[in-house]
Amino acid sequence: MDLGLTPRGRELRDAVATMVREDIAPLDAPFHAETGGTGDRWQHTPRQTEILESLKEKAREQGLWNLWQTHLPGGPGITTVDYAWIAEEMGQSWLAPEVFNCNAPDTGNMEVFARYGTEDMKSLWLERLMAGEIRSAYLMTEPEVASSDASNIALRCERDGDEWVLNGEKWWATGAGDPRCAVHIVMCRTAVDGPRHRSHSMVVVPTDKKEITVLRGMQVFGDDEAPHGHMHIRYDDVRVPLDAMLLGEGRGFEIAQGRLGPGRIHHCMRAVGMAEKCLTLMVERGAARQAFGSDLNSLGGNSERIAEARIGIEASRLLCLKAAWAMDQGDMKAAAPLISQVKIMAPRVALEVCDAAIQMHGAAGVSQDTDLARIYAHLRTLRLVDGPDAVHLRTVARAEMRARGLR
Amino acid sequence: MDLGLTPRGRELRDAVATMVREDIAPLDAPFHAETGGTGDRWQHTPRQTEILESLKEKAREQGLWNLWQTHLPGGPGITTVDYAWIAEEMGQSWLAPEVFNCNAPDTGNMEVFARYGTEDMKSLWLERLMAGEIRSAYLMTEPEVASSDASNIALRCERDGDEWVLNGEKWWATGAGDPRCAVHIVMCRTAVDGPRHRSHSMVVVPTDKKEITVLRGMQVFGDDEAPHGHMHIRYDDVRVPLDAMLLGEGRGFEIAQGRLGPGRIHHCMRAVGMAEKCLTLMVERGAARQAFGSDLNSLGGNSERIAEARIGIEASRLLCLKAAWAMDQGDMKAAAPLISQVKIMAPRVALEVCDAAIQMHGAAGVSQDTDLARIYAHLRTLRLVDGPDAVHLRTVARAEMRARGLR
Amino acid sequence: MDLGLTPRGRELRDAVATMVREDIAPLDAPFHAETGGTGDRWQHTPRQTEILESLKEKAREQGLWNLWQTHLPGGPGITTVDYAWIAEEMGQSWLAPEVFNCNAPDTGNMEVFARYGTEDMKSLWLERLMAGEIRSAYLMTEPEVASSDASNIALRCERDGDEWVLNGEKWWATGAGDPRCAVHIVMCRTAVDGPRHRSHSMVVVPTDKKEITVLRGMQVFGDDEAPHGHMHIRYDDVRVPLDAMLLGEGRGFEIAQGRLGPGRIHHCMRAVGMAEKCLTLMVERGAARQAFGSDLNSLGGNSERIAEARIGIEASRLLCLKAAWAMDQGDMKAAAPLISQVKIMAPRVALEVCDAAIQMHGAAGVSQDTDLARIYAHLRTLRLVDGPDAVHLRTVARAEMRARGLR
Amino acid sequence: MDLGLTPRGRELRDAVATMVREDIAPLDAPFHAETGGTGDRWQHTPRQTEILESLKEKAREQGLWNLWQTHLPGGPGITTVDYAWIAEEMGQSWLAPEVFNCNAPDTGNMEVFARYGTEDMKSLWLERLMAGEIRSAYLMTEPEVASSDASNIALRCERDGDEWVLNGEKWWATGAGDPRCAVHIVMCRTAVDGPRHRSHSMVVVPTDKKEITVLRGMQVFGDDEAPHGHMHIRYDDVRVPLDAMLLGEGRGFEIAQGRLGPGRIHHCMRAVGMAEKCLTLMVERGAARQAFGSDLNSLGGNSERIAEARIGIEASRLLCLKAAWAMDQGDMKAAAPLISQVKIMAPRVALEVCDAAIQMHGAAGVSQDTDLARIYAHLRTLRLVDGPDAVHLRTVARAEMRARGLR
Repeated sequence: MDLGLTPRGRELRDAVATMVREDIAPLDAPFHAETGGTGDRWQHTPRQTEILESLKEKAREQGLWNLWQTHLPGGPGITTVDYAWIAEEMGQSWLAPEVFNCNAPDTGNMEVFARYGTEDMKSLWLERLMAGEIRSAYLMTEPEVASSDASNIALRCERDGDEWVLNGEKWWATGAGDPRCAVHIVMCRTAVDGPRHRSHSMVVVPTDKKEITVLRGMQVFGDDEAPHGHMHIRYDDVRVPLDAMLLGEGRGFEIAQGRLGPGRIHHCMRAVGMAEKCLTLMVERGAARQAFGSDLNSLGGNSERIAEARIGIEASRLLCLKAAWAMDQGDMKAAAPLISQVKIMAPRVALEVCDAAIQMHGAAGVSQDTDLARIYAHLRTLRLVDGPDAVHLRTVARAEMRARGLR
Repeated sequence: MDLGLTPRGRELRDAVATMVREDIAPLDAPFHAETGGTGDRWQHTPRQTEILESLKEKAREQGLWNLWQTHLPGGPGITTVDYAWIAEEMGQSWLAPEVFNCNAPDTGNMEVFARYGTEDMKSLWLERLMAGEIRSAYLMTEPEVASSDASNIALRCERDGDEWVLNGEKWWATGAGDPRCAVHIVMCRTAVDGPRHRSHSMVVVPTDKKEITVLRGMQVFGDDEAPHGHMHIRYDDVRVPLDAMLLGEGRGFEIAQGRLGPGRIHHCMRAVGMAEKCLTLMVERGAARQAFGSDLNSLGGNSERIAEARIGIEASRLLCLKAAWAMDQGDMKAAAPLISQVKIMAPRVALEVCDAAIQMHGAAGVSQDTDLARIYAHLRTLRLVDGPDAVHLRTVARAEMRARGLR
Repeated sequence: MDLGLTPRGRELRDAVATMVREDIAPLDAPFHAETGGTGDRWQHTPRQTEILESLKEKAREQGLWNLWQTHLPGGPGITTVDYAWIAEEMGQSWLAPEVFNCNAPDTGNMEVFARYGTEDMKSLWLERLMAGEIRSAYLMTEPEVASSDASNIALRCERDGDEWVLNGEKWWATGAGDPRCAVHIVMCRTAVDGPRHRSHSMVVVPTDKKEITVLRGMQVFGDDEAPHGHMHIRYDDVRVPLDAMLLGEGRGFEIAQGRLGPGRIHHCMRAVGMAEKCLTLMVERGAARQAFGSDLNSLGGNSERIAEARIGIEASRLLCLKAAWAMDQGDMKAAAPLISQVKIMAPRVALEVCDAAIQMHGAAGVSQDTDLARIYAHLRTLRLVDGPDAVHLRTVARAEMRARGLR
Repeated sequence: MDLGLTPRGRELRDAVATMVREDIAPLDAPFHAETGGTGDRWQHTPRQTEILESLKEKAREQGLWNLWQTHLPGGPGITTVDYAWIAEEMGQSWLAPEVFNCNAPDTGNMEVFARYGTEDMKSLWLERLMAGEIRSAYLMTEPEVASSDASNIALRCERDGDEWVLNGEKWWATGAGDPRCAVHIVMCRTAVDGPRHRSHSMVVVPTDKKEITVLRGMQVFGDDEAPHGHMHIRYDDVRVPLDAMLLGEGRGFEIAQGRLGPGRIHHCMRAVGMAEKCLTLMVERGAARQAFGSDLNSLGGNSERIAEARIGIEASRLLCLKAAWAMDQGDMKAAAPLISQVKIMAPRVALEVCDAAIQMHGAAGVSQDTDLARIYAHLRTLRLVDGPDAVHLRTVARAEMRARGLR
């Protein structure tokens, strides 16, 4: 159970870490500052485009591109464990995942196209996504149902001659606000009374259809994360040809399971990186400020909170790495409960560390003067997306029963 | 130790509760929707002014005005315990505190003017504040020091002939963005090397001076809470006459202590009301949504989280009431550790309940579709303002030592 | 909602507190030291009898006897709230509850006899229990079923002519090891397939029957609490006359509900007293020991743990008092969820305080040199007896649904 | 960072696991049942001796002997990581550690003799300890001082001609009650006003001296753990030759640091095994009992508690393994903060799992009918021995400062 880096992985990790620290992170704030001015929030400003494209160019030049492809031919030749270490570094900057073409939901979508896509889809969508020319969205969650139980998903997809016709609403379509977003992968219901896990299908929909309406951007603690965004979308009689359905009717769950596993891990890996960043901010602030005759780090329980943060980070990183290692063993069934474990633990620990860091900063901690409130808001959503805690706890508990021959 | 309402208190509480539920809360969303358009965020729109003034008029008519005056002659004849129950109701709506002229920091400032103000100040500021014609701000915290230790406060106040001259920066001046804000009460340093608790003074400053610069609005989880705001302010040679100093040189701490006690309690009382609101949202959402064949309330640990929320709310409300009762006994020294206890417990419990409610809502919980994210952001600041948790834990622990004759 | 003492209650509370501190608590250790010698653990030694009887005599003389009778005619004329304050004092010593004839399960059993007993039962059992001449046991829990769901209770009670015949096992019959234990009140099953809450009955059984076998004493963290004990008992064809059944066939649940409410509160009140004792031990130890150049109270998070203990104790005491007050209002249905709340919170808080006190003592904390380990073991059982946490959380959650018209 | 087993380690782990499960664990209860009868608690009964010696014989025959020797020549050729996995298996039975000659404090003492002992000591003590013929004790903690700060240690050791003369008290000398305990290693003070970390020394003392008095056995939650025991011991003018001092005057801390590191890890590894055992008991009990129409595992938050237990165990095991791996890298300075982390996390998690398992069992959980209460008591002491949590939190926090060049 080697949870360390391979030589190739270490080389890439170090290069990513350097580029994040020296080139990307310093541009996070300038990039964000562009949004929210008087222009259209849902367009990149020229400066934003310049920042992104020049960084992407540099990443490509250094061979730090599409490193997420650990399971695909033509990938960087690293393990999922390697990628975990690398993703942790990417977690230290907001722009980094996209700069390395490793951001959600594109990675998951690219994986879907690579595994299940037709040759047409590959040339139309996969190649351009791999090149970073377009972006994509994944339309899963719906406003009217508890999507934590995916069998609730209701967006209708009915056959009409040579076409599928889609009707319904989706929300939290991350990245769908981006003007470069060219394609949706949509989970939809193809059978009304079918068996629970065979009634849904996955369909590929180009975004240039007038029957698609982007209703609004969903806000996370008041932030709409424009121009990327989490969009609320309506389909009114959206039509696609029959071969736009991936794998075939009723196989939506099968694709979703395969798609979500790695994605969950990637989020968690980045969360560990965010927690590390918060801890550093906390320790440095505690050393820099004085009260009652000492620095804050020496007062009351502050040093214990620092230690608890370190323990939590260390433990959740190891759990991430073990889940990554389990994925590398190729048995996704065995890896599933570990992925659920890490999906519960990593965001929770990172939120606790972030919260402690906020507290150490005083009111500055919730303000625009640090990155902490934004990190908190982002991490908070991780307890909801790709399955809320309750669903993953359920998965973990069931694995325990099963391991003992119970139920 | 009667923690219940007096007959007069009950009458007022019921009237406040009714008005909040029927008249005020329904206007929270319309009021907020006005801000953030294309106009000046720091001016009320005509519609906002209309909402506020018509509600205030109604409150005045019903005698639900300045109910916070439990310790002052001419008040509503209720106890602090009564006010605790009333403030809990006000916590259920964003607009309610101002509608009843019971919002921070004006209540604290009015109390300061009533107790320590000159006759001039009373006619210039207190009367107009009592009438709801102007607003005020309290300038305490500073960006460059750990203000949790108030002896760090550094904004200089030096005598120059018949005037005090003030120089320095303050931030988190709540309400100072409001165009109606006419006066600042400013904590400042009048002695450089004096004894720790005699080096600071409190000065009254009209806001119509060009030497005052409002630098920016501080954001709370990305929200600047315009047009009310939490402002970052600079004083450059701001001059006031000698009698603008309250009580006299070196008595700033004395005033601050008296001022903050009730204010802390008011915040906590409202936090209990917010927690009740979150619990209701949580239970109703859990009943309305289905997953895995049950409503959410019946799944996994959800019902236990509801029960825990109830226990926390009940216990923190009782602690609030006891602190209020202790204040009614007139011994502020005895009440102080209780106030610190409630200042720690009430926001913590309310945050936990809010967080659980968010989780029950899924992604909707962090979005603009519920009030939960905004409540969370507000409650989070309560762990920082008027003394962060660490300072109050210190106060409580010291009281335990003292009670046993130690240290 | 007066949660304070009445004048009469205060007088009695002060007298109880004085007697506990001066007379009873100092004899806890000598009393315990007698057990575990070479003699029969399940007999009182002469010294034990002398200690108990002389203290009881003193309590009777001072009128501090049967103070639990807040709901019964001929009682001490105090409220349940008064009794809550008094019981807290009794919680500071192991012997105190019995010294004042206020110990479980006798108080609950006396209440049952007073409410539901025949005249014969009153003269045979109630009078002698009230006089402290005999002790009693309450046989509820069974080894073979999850007794948290009382409808599982299986000890069979069948009619045979003029007699009831009982067969089965009970355990955790507190006090049944005491040689003075003269009577059992037994929950039993009288209908096999009856409606869930009408199939059980309550029967009074004298202990001098050879068909009753005391199998063993149950241990709590290794302590059998001899000579009082928590006994495992078998009934083999135990016969009693028909009028030994309380209220009538199928009414067992009705009696149990009435019986358990006050008892749960009494335990919780005493738990608050134990927590206070633990906190005092903690603070004093922390002040007495030095490490790394400071006393322990000044190191790391220790002072915060002291403050947290105070907050928890204060809040759980207030919750106890409110539940007691609700019982005084006479509406047991309304009081039930509050009793469940306090049954969850009070033992939990007390355990946390006790655990923190243990930690402050170092290894001495788990040893025979302090009372902490014994207190911990006792408090730990409170999370199980009279309904485990899970059952009470269920009750509280259901009340929240009901309050909102749900389910 | 390979945290898995080597081939040799796996072979030994499997053999240990099999022997624990099949041969040793079934004898835990019979062994314990022998103690506490009418005989001398501090002698092994013939049956106890037979159990122990026959199991030890079998372990030796299978080559499962002294496996702890990962750092010493002549050891089993496994890594510390291997040993972590093996120790986890040993944690599943009370007798197992001694059966494999891997129990504390003998392992630590053997390591001390091997590293720092004279040839005489090696032949007199080390060889016989390695052979399992004698037992030893480590005398560190003292009743009169906070031993968490080891510089407080006060047992005097003064030179008198050719001898060291020792005077003072020690307690919690684990294993010193065992009649086979032949030697003490004693931390003592050789300088009164010397530099903080050069004033203590370590001395080897045979136990057959009449100046040594075993005062009593310390109890852990009421259990004296006879005949092994944790003894309170007094030295009155105990004399040893000059060469009984290890390494030399003032080098006690140096030896203690080296000695405690691995020992802390061993305890934690076994704690993980105990937690696994508790989780299995919990899940099986929850499946076996019914309430309110379901098995307990399906009720309320029970399944979530099972999942949380799994997450905690998995994470603390990984942390143990990483600390073991760090020790295998040979840089004890780098490993120290990790050892502290695991010393905090592993007992905490194991206690939480044990507590949840107790709760699932109802009152049976605290009784003699399961192993849970005994496990709880044992695990609780782990938060105190070899440094209480507070000291390790301090170590971890300081490492964080240091890593950032602070203080």
